[in-house]
Amino acid sequence: MAHLTVSVEYGIHCLLWLVDSGDMPLSSRDLAELQGISPSFVAKIFPKLEKAGIVTACEGVRGGYRLARQPEEISFLQIIDAIEGEKPLFDCQEIRNRCAVFGESPPDWATRGYCSIHQVMLKAEKAMRLELAAHSLADVSASVSRKAPRKFFVQIRDWTNQRTSNRKLGRRPRTLDPPE
Amino acid sequence: MAHLTVSVEYGIHCLLWLVDSGDMPLSSRDLAELQGISPSFVAKIFPKLEKAGIVTACEGVRGGYRLARQPEEISFLQIIDAIEGEKPLFDCQEIRNRCAVFGESPPDWATRGYCSIHQVMLKAEKAMRLELAAHSLADVSASVSRKAPRKFFVQIRDWTNQRTSNRKLGRRPRTLDPPE
Repeated sequence: MAHLTVSVEYGIHCLLWLVDSGDMPLSSRDLAELQGISPSFVAKIFPKLEKAGIVTACEGVRGGYRLARQPEEISFLQIIDAIEGEKPLFDCQEIRNRCAVFGESPPDWATRGYCSIHQVMLKAEKAMRLELAAHSLADVSASVSRKAPRKFFVQIRDWTNQRTSNRKLGRRPRTLDPPE
Repeated sequence: MAHLTVSVEYGIHCLLWLVDSGDMPLSSRDLAELQGISPSFVAKIFPKLEKAGIVTACEGVRGGYRLARQPEEISFLQIIDAIEGEKPLFDCQEIRNRCAVFGESPPDWATRGYCSIHQVMLKAEKAMRLELAAHSLADVSASVSRKAPRKFFVQIRDWTNQRTSNRKLGRRPRTLDPPE
């Protein structure tokens, strides 16, 4: 199992689609079905992204989510913290204080400052967080755009427009609910 | 909850005591009781450290564990990988392949190389692992030694010698098993 959960993967993939959709909101259901991932799972991620000021919810038939700020201003670190909480690399239990020879009261020299093990972990955590903070949604979106042919973005726009039209007409999405 | 488990914390603390004990082996029970932590928990960590070539087990009344190599040659990264396994920061599910407009066969441009999100995560993971590899048991042991007064190490030696003598005499340790 990885340190980061699949929610982070789903969340970042969804946000990349919102970079491309610009002012047109996309619903969490459409985003899930566009990517072949669980709609109920994705629906639980968006309130966290909204609370962190990364997306804005828009009501109505054409409702859904939009980015709340420019993709250049949304880092991987902010997205991960929004979804997972600011999870530390290491949770120091201060076991240095429990040494048998100290009895009930550990001496000052033993408890002063951070535990030396914790200090190393904090440096490693900082290195990781700095790297995650250095990459924005805009960087990654640009790298995907360089790879994808123009017709791909036309196909995506057609797919999402079709979904919105179906919703206006009260049709249920075909991908998940085939006619009986 | 932190990314690294409490096993890592217990493991590194135990290994630091083994730096100080040098050629004298310490049992996992003594190491646990010296630090006021669960002996059964600590007993499960040592076979992993032994398998990774970080400690060597020694049989007998004076048995226990010793470091298997110099503390300068044992990095935090090696200890963490030994205890937790080489746990990745991110486990890419390649959801880019499932895009609804691709149908059954995603095109080459979409599946080539690493997913752009995964690439960022790999950079962050590398930054963290480099930092963890840069710190050895010897570094941290030296920083603890600078803080602690000389009499502390005498107290520790007396405590461990007392435990070994008790074992030779067949006495049970007083800290966990008080006489009835």
